[in-house]
Amino acid sequence: MQIAIVLFERFTALDAVGPYEMLSGLPDARTVFVAERTGPVRADTGFLAITADRTLADVPRPDIVVVPGGPGQHGQMENEPLLDWLRTADATSTWTTSVCTGSLLLAAAGLLKGRRASSHWLALDQLARFDAEPTGERVVFDGKYVTAAGVSAGIDMALTLVGRIAGDDHARTVQLASEYDPQPPYDAGAPQKAPVHLVEKLRSRSRFILR
Amino acid sequence: MQIAIVLFERFTALDAVGPYEMLSGLPDARTVFVAERTGPVRADTGFLAITADRTLADVPRPDIVVVPGGPGQHGQMENEPLLDWLRTADATSTWTTSVCTGSLLLAAAGLLKGRRASSHWLALDQLARFDAEPTGERVVFDGKYVTAAGVSAGIDMALTLVGRIAGDDHARTVQLASEYDPQPPYDAGAPQKAPVHLVEKLRSRSRFILR
Repeated sequence: MQIAIVLFERFTALDAVGPYEMLSGLPDARTVFVAERTGPVRADTGFLAITADRTLADVPRPDIVVVPGGPGQHGQMENEPLLDWLRTADATSTWTTSVCTGSLLLAAAGLLKGRRASSHWLALDQLARFDAEPTGERVVFDGKYVTAAGVSAGIDMALTLVGRIAGDDHARTVQLASEYDPQPPYDAGAPQKAPVHLVEKLRSRSRFILR
Repeated sequence: MQIAIVLFERFTALDAVGPYEMLSGLPDARTVFVAERTGPVRADTGFLAITADRTLADVPRPDIVVVPGGPGQHGQMENEPLLDWLRTADATSTWTTSVCTGSLLLAAAGLLKGRRASSHWLALDQLARFDAEPTGERVVFDGKYVTAAGVSAGIDMALTLVGRIAGDDHARTVQLASEYDPQPPYDAGAPQKAPVHLVEKLRSRSRFILR
């Protein structure tokens, strides 16, 4: 089973690496990081680069497509070579997935029309522009399209997908091996739960980040 | 504030990228991935490489040291240049931290003697060989030493550390920005919670992996 994870400049690293860690636990998984060009692709902080081992053209028919998000998503919204690749890969994929604002790239490629989808909470309302139906859920399945909320939600999305593909016991084994028994020291991981002044602070910052 | 994350061949990617994503949200964070040589360092699956932007020698005095684990940890246990760097960096660090079997490298460098520490549940008992006291906790603070359990526990460790350094509201903002509101689809992330046959399966496999 081939899993293609798409990279572009200024992606958010955990969006990509969370699903990578879970999905690579699938039986016979062959995960490959792809980008327009091979070589290091730098994440949004500037502090981390992951190697794209193959170009998009090298990997035309992955079984699973994973599109991360991040501040760099905006710059890809009219990148036709990437959007074309998404449409082509989607034509034969078993699962087409995204994390965070990666769903906006799937939407821009025309793949989420009429579908329920998730995204980072700060970007959720942008899905409607592309005739997708935003939901507040952390992981949304609509047919073969699986979209996750922001950043860390990709872990939950991918572990759920491992269960669908390889069964509950296999997914539990992946969970146990990665000791995924989360114990966040705070309970502020969603806008409904966080203090209002912090939600507002991020909302005002996002006018600059998410454009 | 300089944060050095150590890479070595066959590290586990989420061990490193979980803390990276949280700690890079610290005010004035300058995160740097370091290894014996600069260039791509490949993770345990073979599917992912992160670039080491600096050598160990380039970064002698980080404020925070993060040591991930993974199957490659075993091969580093007698790597004197790495252990020497850990001792030197630790001499001036504010925080010395690890995720998963990274604590065994701190222990091998002699830094955890007489200290309470955590590690991947499959490797926990190995800490005692180095006069550290293994605990079953997910995140263990003992003075400036902070050790996390397996793989995904690095996210909880790092978010807790962000709170200690920059305050609760800053940590909550980092949590909200990364939408860290975990909703695992299963409850098998710790050996006490997972079905016994899966715990035993991983235990028998680990004889081959963790040596």
